[in-house]
Amino acid sequence: MTVKTRNYIYQHGTLGGLMQDLLEGTEKIGTLVNYGDFGLGTLEGANGEVIILDGVIYHVDQTGKVTQLTGDELTPYAAVTNFETEKQFVLENVSDAVVKTEISAEISHNLFSAVKISGTFNHMHVRVVPKQQKPYPRFVEIARNQPEFSADNITGTIVGFFTPGLFQGAAAAGFHLHFISDDRNFGGHVLDFSLEEGLVELMELAEFRQNFPIKSADYLANEIKLEDISKDIEEAE
Amino acid sequence: MTVKTRNYIYQHGTLGGLMQDLLEGTEKIGTLVNYGDFGLGTLEGANGEVIILDGVIYHVDQTGKVTQLTGDELTPYAAVTNFETEKQFVLENVSDAVVKTEISAEISHNLFSAVKISGTFNHMHVRVVPKQQKPYPRFVEIARNQPEFSADNITGTIVGFFTPGLFQGAAAAGFHLHFISDDRNFGGHVLDFSLEEGLVELMELAEFRQNFPIKSADYLANEIKLEDISKDIEEAE
Repeated sequence: MTVKTRNYIYQHGTLGGLMQDLLEGTEKIGTLVNYGDFGLGTLEGANGEVIILDGVIYHVDQTGKVTQLTGDELTPYAAVTNFETEKQFVLENVSDAVVKTEISAEISHNLFSAVKISGTFNHMHVRVVPKQQKPYPRFVEIARNQPEFSADNITGTIVGFFTPGLFQGAAAAGFHLHFISDDRNFGGHVLDFSLEEGLVELMELAEFRQNFPIKSADYLANEIKLEDISKDIEEAE
Repeated sequence: MTVKTRNYIYQHGTLGGLMQDLLEGTEKIGTLVNYGDFGLGTLEGANGEVIILDGVIYHVDQTGKVTQLTGDELTPYAAVTNFETEKQFVLENVSDAVVKTEISAEISHNLFSAVKISGTFNHMHVRVVPKQQKPYPRFVEIARNQPEFSADNITGTIVGFFTPGLFQGAAAAGFHLHFISDDRNFGGHVLDFSLEEGLVELMELAEFRQNFPIKSADYLANEIKLEDISKDIEEAE
C-alpha cells in the first residue's frame, strides 16, 4: 500500500514507563484526541482499558463496565492516529492467529501500522487492568491478577497498532489490540478471539511521535531499563 | 531545567537501519534543516559524518576533508533539533568521561537531550565512516576499518544528543557526539577527547519524532532485528 507522508502515530508516555511503575497520569486523555481519532491507552494507576474510536473515548473498568470519558481524565500512556483506511480485506471464520498472519503479510515490519477489525466475533476474550494505588506495584504483577471477560457472538471493533520490533519498550512490539462492542457494553485489552466475519482495515504510518511526560518528577527521575522491562512486556502484553 | 513543550528531536531513518545494511539515501539532508538547525547524521552508503550547526550542513569524508553541503545530498540517517540553551556551565581541564558524568547529572535519563560543547580541546579523536557501495556490508564491519583522525589544541564545537536507554536501536543509547572545528577544517564522529576549557549547553526534549523512509523498498522489506543490532551498536557507536 502507499504510505502517506503526513500519517503518524502520536503517543504520550511509554509502555516501558508503565512496566516500571510509572503509572501517574501525566496528560489529559482528551488531549490525545487532538492528534488522532483512533487509539488505545489506560488511565492513571493503570485504571482499565481505553478505546478511542471515531474520536469518542471509551473506558472499561475492572468490573467490565464501559463508560464514555469526558477527556479530562489523566493518562500515563495512550497512542492515537487519525485513521484512514489504506488497505482492506474481509476474513471469515478465522482464529486470531490467522488474522495476525494475514495482516503481517500486508504491512512493513519496519513501520507502525494502525489496525481496525470490525465485524462479528464468535468469541472475544479480553482483560482489564485493575486500578492501582501508590506505591504502585510492578505492572507485570498487576497483569498476573487481572480480571478477564469473555463474550460470544458479539459485534464490535478491534482498535490497535502494530509496532516494529525495533521499538519494543516504547510500545509493545507486534500487535497491541483493544476491543469495543457495537452496543458499547463490552470491551478491553484483547487476549484472543475468533472472527466469524470481519473487515480488516490497515494504515501504515510514516512517523512515530513520542511525547514524554516532561512535568512528572517521577518520570524524569526514574530511568526506565530496557533490559528489565522486555520480559515484563512479553508476559504482560 | 524546565523542558519546553514544543521542543523536539526529529530523526529520519533509524540507527538500527544503518546497522542492518540499510544505507540507501532516503531523504535530502537539507529537508532535515526544516526541522532543526542543530544535529548529526551520515550520507548515502554511510558516506562520512554530517554535522549541522546554526543551520549550516557540514560533511567530513573518509579522507578527513570537510565541505559544506548544498542540502540536496541524500541521507539514510540524521537527527536534528532547534537548539536553544536551557542549561549551561563551564568545564575546565576535564576528560570526556568527566564531561559525560557532569552532563548525566543534569539531564533526565528518560528524555532525549541535545548536547553542545564549544571551546578549546587539548585533544580531539574522531572517526569517519568510509563510503560503501552496494551490496552494503554490515555496519559493524565497516566500523572495524574506519579512518580515525586526531587533533591537539583545537577550538570547535561538539554537536550531539543523549538518547534514553529505552530507545536503543532507534538511536544510540547514551551519548552520540560529532565534532566540527571553528576553522571548519576538522571534524567527525567523536571517539574521545580532552577538554581544556569549554561551555556545555544542554536542552532536554519533550518529543521524539521518528520519521521513516516510507519510499524505500529495501527499508520496508527488511525487518530490523533489535536483538541482532544491539551488540553491533555497542561496538560501532
